[in-house]
Amino acid sequence: MIVLNSLISSFLFLLVNCYIIDPGPTVIATKGEVWPKPYSQQNSSKYYGFRPVLFQFTLTTDNNCNFLQDAFSRYHKIVMTEALRGKKSFSFYKHLHYKKQTLNDDLFLGYLDNLNVTLKGDCKDDEYPSSTMNEEYELKVDETGANLVSPTIWGVLRGLETFSQLVYLADDTVSLRINLTEIEDKPRFPHRGLHLDTSRHFMPVDTLLVMLDAMSYNKMNVFHWHITDDQSFPYVSLKFPELSEKGAYASTLVYSPADVKEIIEYARLRGIRVLPEFDTPGHTRSWGEGKRDILTECYPRPNKTGKLGPIDPTKNSTYEFLKEFFDEVGDVFPDQYIHLGGDEVGFECWQSNPDIIAFMKANNMSDDFVGLESYYIQKLIDIVDELNSDSIVWEEVFVNGVVLPQKTIVHVWKDVWQVTVAEVVDSGRQALLSTCWYLDHLGSYVDWHDFYACEPYSATADEEKQKLILGGEACMWAEEVNEYNVVPRVWPRASAAAEKLWSRKDVNDVTDAAKRLEEHTCRMNRRGVAAQPPNYSGYCL
Amino acid sequence: MIVLNSLISSFLFLLVNCYIIDPGPTVIATKGEVWPKPYSQQNSSKYYGFRPVLFQFTLTTDNNCNFLQDAFSRYHKIVMTEALRGKKSFSFYKHLHYKKQTLNDDLFLGYLDNLNVTLKGDCKDDEYPSSTMNEEYELKVDETGANLVSPTIWGVLRGLETFSQLVYLADDTVSLRINLTEIEDKPRFPHRGLHLDTSRHFMPVDTLLVMLDAMSYNKMNVFHWHITDDQSFPYVSLKFPELSEKGAYASTLVYSPADVKEIIEYARLRGIRVLPEFDTPGHTRSWGEGKRDILTECYPRPNKTGKLGPIDPTKNSTYEFLKEFFDEVGDVFPDQYIHLGGDEVGFECWQSNPDIIAFMKANNMSDDFVGLESYYIQKLIDIVDELNSDSIVWEEVFVNGVVLPQKTIVHVWKDVWQVTVAEVVDSGRQALLSTCWYLDHLGSYVDWHDFYACEPYSATADEEKQKLILGGEACMWAEEVNEYNVVPRVWPRASAAAEKLWSRKDVNDVTDAAKRLEEHTCRMNRRGVAAQPPNYSGYCL
Repeated sequence: MIVLNSLISSFLFLLVNCYIIDPGPTVIATKGEVWPKPYSQQNSSKYYGFRPVLFQFTLTTDNNCNFLQDAFSRYHKIVMTEALRGKKSFSFYKHLHYKKQTLNDDLFLGYLDNLNVTLKGDCKDDEYPSSTMNEEYELKVDETGANLVSPTIWGVLRGLETFSQLVYLADDTVSLRINLTEIEDKPRFPHRGLHLDTSRHFMPVDTLLVMLDAMSYNKMNVFHWHITDDQSFPYVSLKFPELSEKGAYASTLVYSPADVKEIIEYARLRGIRVLPEFDTPGHTRSWGEGKRDILTECYPRPNKTGKLGPIDPTKNSTYEFLKEFFDEVGDVFPDQYIHLGGDEVGFECWQSNPDIIAFMKANNMSDDFVGLESYYIQKLIDIVDELNSDSIVWEEVFVNGVVLPQKTIVHVWKDVWQVTVAEVVDSGRQALLSTCWYLDHLGSYVDWHDFYACEPYSATADEEKQKLILGGEACMWAEEVNEYNVVPRVWPRASAAAEKLWSRKDVNDVTDAAKRLEEHTCRMNRRGVAAQPPNYSGYCL
Repeated sequence: MIVLNSLISSFLFLLVNCYIIDPGPTVIATKGEVWPKPYSQQNSSKYYGFRPVLFQFTLTTDNNCNFLQDAFSRYHKIVMTEALRGKKSFSFYKHLHYKKQTLNDDLFLGYLDNLNVTLKGDCKDDEYPSSTMNEEYELKVDETGANLVSPTIWGVLRGLETFSQLVYLADDTVSLRINLTEIEDKPRFPHRGLHLDTSRHFMPVDTLLVMLDAMSYNKMNVFHWHITDDQSFPYVSLKFPELSEKGAYASTLVYSPADVKEIIEYARLRGIRVLPEFDTPGHTRSWGEGKRDILTECYPRPNKTGKLGPIDPTKNSTYEFLKEFFDEVGDVFPDQYIHLGGDEVGFECWQSNPDIIAFMKANNMSDDFVGLESYYIQKLIDIVDELNSDSIVWEEVFVNGVVLPQKTIVHVWKDVWQVTVAEVVDSGRQALLSTCWYLDHLGSYVDWHDFYACEPYSATADEEKQKLILGGEACMWAEEVNEYNVVPRVWPRASAAAEKLWSRKDVNDVTDAAKRLEEHTCRMNRRGVAAQPPNYSGYCL
């Protein structure tokens, strides 16, 4: 790293006071453009006035769907915030009536005070979002009014988000408008995730809820919660409370069962899956504080202290513990999938331990440590399989040749990702991509342009195999972030990934995206998300 | 840039999920250590209990110095916040009396409820900090009590900051303590600045006030306000209101005369100079919105539109305007110095303009555009000189061979800074250094280690010439920051520069600094500064 750092920094010191001598014109935000860009949209210059105070959502289908009623009140608050721009709420409201009489503009169609919402399918109030949920919807704003139609509650949520983004502040900076438009929308990829590490630095629950809000504003649908790692174990286990009692940074820096419930429910109401990751056999140092016996004892060697290493894959007691632990995880987290990690396992400690060596001899592994890793992961996957959960693993597990069930999803995060993704789908397995969207990788420039340039299908030209690419995740590892900087570090950079994963393949014009992202960032700011500026210069009104 | 960016990003993509497979132990914060490290300090394990509610500051010298009374109430609030840690304020208070009876610890000396402050020199309530202010102080906490002595109000401010940092939360996580200590302190460099650009993105006044608070917590004493640039002109001029009316992003995104007054006074009370920069002749595009005639008309050429370029140095009207404008700047900003910029002047536009060419011919400059730049800067410096202000310029002005008065300070920011600083001090002029501390240069690692490794004296071994190195500034250019991310982007990274500029040359142990910076960052967080985490792992209680 040291060499790499100095290399990077020496490059950085080539930079100048302003990146571009002539920075060109300031990027001006669009008005009422949708992020991520819908599958298809026809716009009109005709428009309605919009009065948040009078506006209401109407569910046409005669059932009382609490799930959607909750979403309606949430989005009513959101469009209300638009009315409070410039703190004009009251005069603004008077002003509108005044305008109504005086506005002499044949593009003006009067006021839109209602959105009809038609849910074609069932409303199960306690339904959880899943990897197979249907998120498509149709939204029409025409001379007859506004209509949102979807077969599912998830599609309705996405449509409500789109509708809320269509409302914009007119040039008079006082009145709100929504243009006539016709939108058919559906995601390009079913898995559009944000990965967040809460171990290197702890993130309070409120911070996670803001993240979930922001995800819903970007139509992301998987919160990949990398909840534990070497540095701390903030998850309060019901069966093994000692794990957090001894492995958390402090007794206050934990996620109680009630916290976890709250996060899962908050996410559910926004159509977001919570995908838990308990990374093993590496990245487990903090587990050893509470459960020393599950980790490998590293034997003293030159330049080595006798500290603890990865999970000890040779003891039956290890697997008895893991079975109990992941049984709890399966109960606590409703999602069908559990992320099992499996990345970056160092072999030095296993090598130093005579019991491990003896076990390997006895099992004809000689010094095949990859084989030992495979032995562990296979047993773990079998455990999770018996618990009726499905597995996702980081790419090393696949690349190292572990025999995986066909249904195990492989999460690609390293360089030369096209090669690895191709190998995964060639094997008939499903792949997730993160390499392009590592939010902890920083450069002294507008790096969302790089995030935006990533095309997952560049891994394979085979259309059947492309279907095995489920999508991807923007990853926020927490070595350098905590509650004080994680929100602006993630947003709007993750928004670039969100559009790549939702919008059509041919949506790749960075100049057009820059203007829409300027508006979308200001929109997130108004909604309480401290997103950082997306472009070299710009402003929010 | 594009090439550079992809170079950097390709390096970044070599990074891994955790930067170090074994990240090593979590950095544990120190307790009651001072940042930046004092010139000399003797510690003792004996300690007093500290009760913020009962604590008071006493000015021994029988004058009523409002400036210090204001500082006392400010620091009383600050030590109170320590009492509110863990929201224990009330039970905490009861608890203390309970402890007083029961605490059986011969290191415990009872409670320290007073700090005697002795100001040896005069207290002028309306005094402004200056480049020659004396900031030294002595602080003793011994068996007889606590005493702070300084010849100046500025030294008292620094001593109060140090005192507030000595108070720490005991391991019982309930009671506050302060150890016996003996401190003699003074800054290594007189100029310890934070540079902030408010043009690429606008920063609200409240954000600037938080920056000033944080500067005082780091004993920085110069707020270098890069107030205008190409992108926007947020400064409301009394004589030329059209500059901001047309050159600001919006009528709400400006600094009114009242705002500027507030910022200067807020800084003064914290011993911070406000050094205004109005950068010319380049970086002035926004000036042209309100004063088109002062900029050079760029003539259409292949791949060139007829837009406006740098200030037109050939017209008398230009200098008449500048004289009026800087006369106002001198009145509004009390500091003796004005930063005149002078960086990154592109010559293409001057080259394209026949009037400029004709002027150069007439003045025997032929195609010597550096000569034309020199002609401009010399006239500008003369104007400022006549207005009885002194000048600071970016290094290009010196490097390009402009004939500068000996008293003009040269601000070095480019690479190979040792060479440039050496040339400046060889010329007998004073130098400021910023190259090492460019906060907009980002890397995917703990980059304050690099900031901390910078040694200004490495530019020259000549002790007489070293005295001409006044110090330096951490620079925050605003292409990628605004109110939502500027505070964590600057802090605690700028704290590394602050310690390099205040503490002794031999204070350079990064391992020791990491622990103290962990505490200092948590301290800033408690005081309302959203500083980001300084180390790969860590936490605040």
